[in-house]
This record gives sequence, C-alpha cells and structure tokens, in this order.
Amino acid sequence: MTVRIEADYLIETAWPLDEAAAMLAGEQSSGTFVPVPGETPELKARAAARVEVITPLGEGMPPSLPGAGRPDQLHRQAHITVSWPVENLGPSLPNLVATVAGNLFELNAFSGLRLLDVRLPPVFATANPGPAFGVPGTRTLSGVANRPLIGTIIKPSVGFSPQETADLVAVLCRAGIDFIKDDELQADGPACPFADRARAVMAVINDHADRTGKKVMYAFNLTGEVDEMRARHDLVASLGGTCVMVSLNSVGVTGMLALRRHARLPIHAHRNGWGYLSRHPALGWDFAAWAKIWRLAGADHLHVNGLRNKFCESDASVIASARSLADPMFPGMACAAMPVFSSGQSARQVHDTWAALGTADLIHAAGGGIMAHPQGPSGGVAALRAAWDAAMAGVPLAQAACEDAALAAAL
Amino acid sequence: MTVRIEADYLIETAWPLDEAAAMLAGEQSSGTFVPVPGETPELKARAAARVEVITPLGEGMPPSLPGAGRPDQLHRQAHITVSWPVENLGPSLPNLVATVAGNLFELNAFSGLRLLDVRLPPVFATANPGPAFGVPGTRTLSGVANRPLIGTIIKPSVGFSPQETADLVAVLCRAGIDFIKDDELQADGPACPFADRARAVMAVINDHADRTGKKVMYAFNLTGEVDEMRARHDLVASLGGTCVMVSLNSVGVTGMLALRRHARLPIHAHRNGWGYLSRHPALGWDFAAWAKIWRLAGADHLHVNGLRNKFCESDASVIASARSLADPMFPGMACAAMPVFSSGQSARQVHDTWAALGTADLIHAAGGGIMAHPQGPSGGVAALRAAWDAAMAGVPLAQAACEDAALAAAL
Repeated sequence: MTVRIEADYLIETAWPLDEAAAMLAGEQSSGTFVPVPGETPELKARAAARVEVITPLGEGMPPSLPGAGRPDQLHRQAHITVSWPVENLGPSLPNLVATVAGNLFELNAFSGLRLLDVRLPPVFATANPGPAFGVPGTRTLSGVANRPLIGTIIKPSVGFSPQETADLVAVLCRAGIDFIKDDELQADGPACPFADRARAVMAVINDHADRTGKKVMYAFNLTGEVDEMRARHDLVASLGGTCVMVSLNSVGVTGMLALRRHARLPIHAHRNGWGYLSRHPALGWDFAAWAKIWRLAGADHLHVNGLRNKFCESDASVIASARSLADPMFPGMACAAMPVFSSGQSARQVHDTWAALGTADLIHAAGGGIMAHPQGPSGGVAALRAAWDAAMAGVPLAQAACEDAALAAAL
Repeated sequence: MTVRIEADYLIETAWPLDEAAAMLAGEQSSGTFVPVPGETPELKARAAARVEVITPLGEGMPPSLPGAGRPDQLHRQAHITVSWPVENLGPSLPNLVATVAGNLFELNAFSGLRLLDVRLPPVFATANPGPAFGVPGTRTLSGVANRPLIGTIIKPSVGFSPQETADLVAVLCRAGIDFIKDDELQADGPACPFADRARAVMAVINDHADRTGKKVMYAFNLTGEVDEMRARHDLVASLGGTCVMVSLNSVGVTGMLALRRHARLPIHAHRNGWGYLSRHPALGWDFAAWAKIWRLAGADHLHVNGLRNKFCESDASVIASARSLADPMFPGMACAAMPVFSSGQSARQVHDTWAALGTADLIHAAGGGIMAHPQGPSGGVAALRAAWDAAMAGVPLAQAACEDAALAAAL
C-alpha cells in the first residue's frame, strides 16, 4: 500500500521514454511548459509528481493518434508509473480525476496515452464512502445465496407506460426472476414518469413478495439532478424497493457521491458511454482504473458487458473487468463491487463465465435470452438457473441439457 | 428549432449506411438486439428514434477503431442526424447524455462513431439554467469593456502555500492583470487549503481594489463534492470574490447543475480531461456538442485552448470551438459562454486570434507569456494589451511593436 497516489499509464511517444514520462509528471504537478521562478527545489520536493517505473514495450509502430509531435520519427510504447504526494489534492475523488486523468491526454509528446490503474493511500478510504452493500448486502436483500442473481432488463428500452412496465414486471416475477432493471434510456420522461412507474412496479413486486416470500430486486433508474435523485431514492425506499440505478457518465463523480451519501439502498451503476472512454486501445481509460473511482464513490453493482456480447469488447477484456471489481482497494476496505454481466446473454455463456471467473458473485442479466425463450420468460429463467447449477456442480452443459427441458429448449 | 431532440454523428461502418444508422437509432430508443413482443407499431410511433439524414462521406478507409464487425469488408463514413421525441426523457441534461452519448460507441457495427452536435427543443431552455453571467456579466464584474480580459494562471500549478499564492497575486495585480485562475491541480489539498488560499488572495485583491478601483477577477478552483463546492462558493462570495472555477469532467453534469443552481458568481469551466473525450477523430465528442451540455448547465467561461498551443490541437479546431460557444442554443436564450484562450499564449498569437475570431469577447490567458516577459509581469500584461489594441485598430503587429517597448520586448 502506497503513501503516495500512484497511476499506471500506457504511453506512446517519439520522445525518449524518460523525457516523455517526465513531461507528463511535470504537467500534472508543479511543472509547466516554461520554467517559472517559483518552482524552487523545495517546492518540487514537496509537490512534484515522480516517475517511479518505466517499462519499455516495443517500438516502430505508426502513431496511434494524430496530432502528436515528431510524427515521422520512431515511436515507442511503455508502461509507466507516476506518483503524487497526497498533500497536493487531499483524498478528494473529483480532484483525483483532474490529477491522474486531467490535461495530459492532449500533450503533444504523446501519440497514445491510456490510464491503466490507480492505487490510493488509505486516507482515501477514510474520506470516501465505498459501496454500502456490494455482494453480501445484495444477497441479503434479494434472498439469493450461493449462485448468481438471474436478472433482466425491461424491454423495449423506452416507450412503455408505467402500467405496461408493471405488467411486464408481473410476468417476470411469475417467471422466477431475481433482479430487474430499468433501461438506461428510461428515467423520468413525461411518457413514463418515475414516480408513477415506481408505484406501479412496487405494487406488483410487493404483492408478489406477500404471496411468495420472494422480493424481486428492481433497480429503478433515478438518473437526474442531485435533488431529483435524492427524492426518487426516498420514494423507492418508502415503497419498499431494494435498489436504485444511476448512469455514471451522466451524473459524474460528485453526483454519485451526493447520491451515495444520502442513500440507504444499493446503487446499481450503469456504465453507458463507456465506449467513448475506452474504445481506442491507446487512449482513455482501462476499466480497472475507471471502476476504482466509482467503487470508492459507492457503486454496489457495476456493468462489465458479457462473454460473446453484442458489442465490440473481447471476452478477455470482459473477464478482466469483472475480476478487477474484487481487487481489494485498501486493507480492511476492499470496496468490491458486484459485476453485472449482460448483452446477448443466455444459458450458452454460463459455463464459460463460471470457468473464467471462478465465482458466482455476479448478476447475470439476459434480455432476449429470457423474454424470447421458446417456453416464455419462465423457461428463460429456469434455463439460466439450470445452467448455473450445472456449471457450479461441474456438470457439462450438454449433459445438463439432457436433464432439463428448459435448458434444452434454450440451446 | 426542432421539436424533437436531434444529434449529428460521424459514423464509420462496413454495414450499409441506412442499416447502421437504424441500428444506432433502435439501440438508443425502443429497439434491442432481438425483437421483443412489446415493441408494437404504436409504441414505435411514440418512442422510436428516427434517422433524419444520411450524408455519405467516402469509403475504402481502413477501420479507424478495432473490435468492429466485418473488418475485412469495405468501410464507409457518413454524417447522420438522429432524432428523439422529448417525451422519452424530458428536458433532463443527465438523461440527454445517456440518450445521445450512451451505449452506442461500442456498437459492433461501428468502426468509428463521434457525436458532432446536438439541437434541443425549447423545453430544455425552460428546465435548465444556462450561464448566469456570460460575456456581459463578466465584463461588468471585471470592469473590462471592449477588449479581451488579459488573464494568467497561478504557476507553479501546485505547491505554493496560501501566502505564496497571495504574494504572486499581488505581483500580478500590480502588473495590471484583469483575470487570474487557480490551476486545475490546485483545489483544497492539505498543502494549500481552499479557505486559507481564498482569504489570503482576496485580502490582496480587495486591498488592490480599494487603492485602484480595479477588482481583479480571480477564479477559485472549488472542484469537490456538491456540499463542498457550495460552501466554497459561499466563502468566495462572502470575501468579495467575483468568480469560481470547476473541473467539468471531475464533477460531472449533476455536480455542475447543483453548483449553478446555488451560485451567484460566474462559473469558470475547465475542460481538463478533454483529450480522452476527443483525441481520436473517429471517436467521442466534438467540442460543439460537448460544450452545449455545459453551456446549458451554466458554464460562463469555457476553455478552448489557443492558437499555436502546446497541445495536439489544430488552430482550426481551436477557432471552431471558440465560435461554437456563441452559436445560439434557443430563441431568446443563446446560452453563450465566453471562450478562454490559453496554452503557450503571448502577444504573438493576438493578431491571428482576432483575425480568425472577429470578436474581443474572450479571456486571453498567458502563463509564461506574462511571467517570463523580459520586463516582468507588467511587461507581459502591457504587451498583450498593446497587441490587442493594435489588432482591433487594424495596426499590424510589427508596426505596433515599433511604438510599444513592452510589445517589442515580448516579440
């Protein structure tokens, strides 16, 4: 555990690696483009960022990004680690973002720059809330132990009235679902006001819980301004709801912190927009670094895509993201978030997900995989449950399908 | 003016352009990857996004981004316009972001996707604050009419104590500066607490104002959690300060809105992190689209880089960004923000900036260009003032330098 803030980057540059790394460290601490009189040795000693490690990776690639200097010279890549004294900014997440991911991606020396990971001194654990529920709290509230929560998303994404939404929730409750979420496009539009939707949906969920003892966890998308989010959270809590959802890139770090410091329900964190932060491999953010900001801000569940998804992401990247959420951030405060697998998911991906991840501490959400099952939603839920039971018991998928009609139909 | 929400994108795809555009529109409204029973013709009529325009740009380029489908097939680019009924989300900025810039940059059909611009129906103007001060309010508070505010940044960026900061501010006040800002790395670290810095700096600024009648505008970087920002704003206001600064990508849209709805001072909006949103030309955000979100959320000043800057950005891009800030967003509510030119600026860029922009409604900030002037900071400020006077009077730079010693020394 460091007593300084540390960040790892992939850099690509036509400058000597040590010069390029020093430029980054200078720009993000006491240095500037031209020497100024005030930057004394004493000031540098207390405030300058430090290049800790430079690991060359290779050279001779064409520049990954346009606009960098020396485009016709030899470019090389490296992993570097830079550290900062926490005294520069204190344990403030918004200011951490400005420090480790601020004015550096545009620096002329870099034809590629990507933030890979961050490590924070324990004072950040004291000053920030972290997730209040995570895996254990989610299991308690949902009543699901020792297997993934089987989840789904309300589809169509947007367009249902509150009552149409509640009618679909009733179908899903009867189907045996553990978890349902709003789509990220559905928050508080005039065509489906949040309060009306929450009331209609919770009437169904509470009725189902009264009859069966099972309270389905519904993540209501309360994305909005700070006061709106607090009011919507309070409404959900007053109705007996057990989860709220927020679009992280829509509300930002301070919006998330304001919600978390107010909330008494788990926060389901949606990463929509993640593509513009990550899609180019030599630019932006790796998931591990980005997720640590939100874990420390209080995300209980975080979306990680799914195996063989319908987006551009590789399976290896999906698994690396999910595993990173359990990587302890501090001694005694892991800040672990529960990964949410989704996008084109069905019973077909269960065995591979289990084999790659080695834990059932996840939410496995399928839309079409549940709604479009030949036996209807109850068949879709049963198939996913059967696949997970088999995977965790070491029974191959084909064998399990011989013994379970819903699973056979799903495949 | 549209009654629907409209967004313009650059797309790159190996799919037929109309199919790719329809996939984007479907994913961001009522569609999903597989047909679901609830998406009736009636629901689509009220909730589906619509592809309004497709303008082919060219084809045969290699895929700009990895991970897209059909990598070995012919790729083509186009500009498209997509529209949404405002009933889907209401006039909510956080949910606008999830709609026009959510789960689409990762779509498998796209080897490139960039949000170029957005146009919003007037209901957004009613529901959101916009800038409270902009150019006219900034001119009133700073007492600077009919020319750019000449500004600078406290350098070293971080490391000064509150008193050292105030001592430099005293030098800058004597030099005749109009505007000073904290660096984005300096907010409320233990080495330079916000409250101590604000008190020390405002004592100097108020003293200078008492003696000269000129109150220098200082943008205090209050970036932090929502309650912290409100308290810091109130402290600055109580001390007689006239501006606060916030790092947009650190606080997010809801943090900005919470600050703006509380504030009674101009908000100087710093775009650090902009590189990871924009650096690849086929990914992320164009400035015009991104800035409209923040203009409507209440940014009075917005950073646009500067001509011949030290970053990767071209002069054409800088000017396009600055001009976009004056592009009226609504009838009767332009939401114009004041552009802040900075990065490697000095008297050398003044004539070209004036020629390209055609207005003096800007803040021209120079760090080294002022601090490292041969005659000291007063020479740096005088040179910038002389250059702007000359440019606006149609006097060439070389001729003006013959008549002004400070300007001659700067060149």
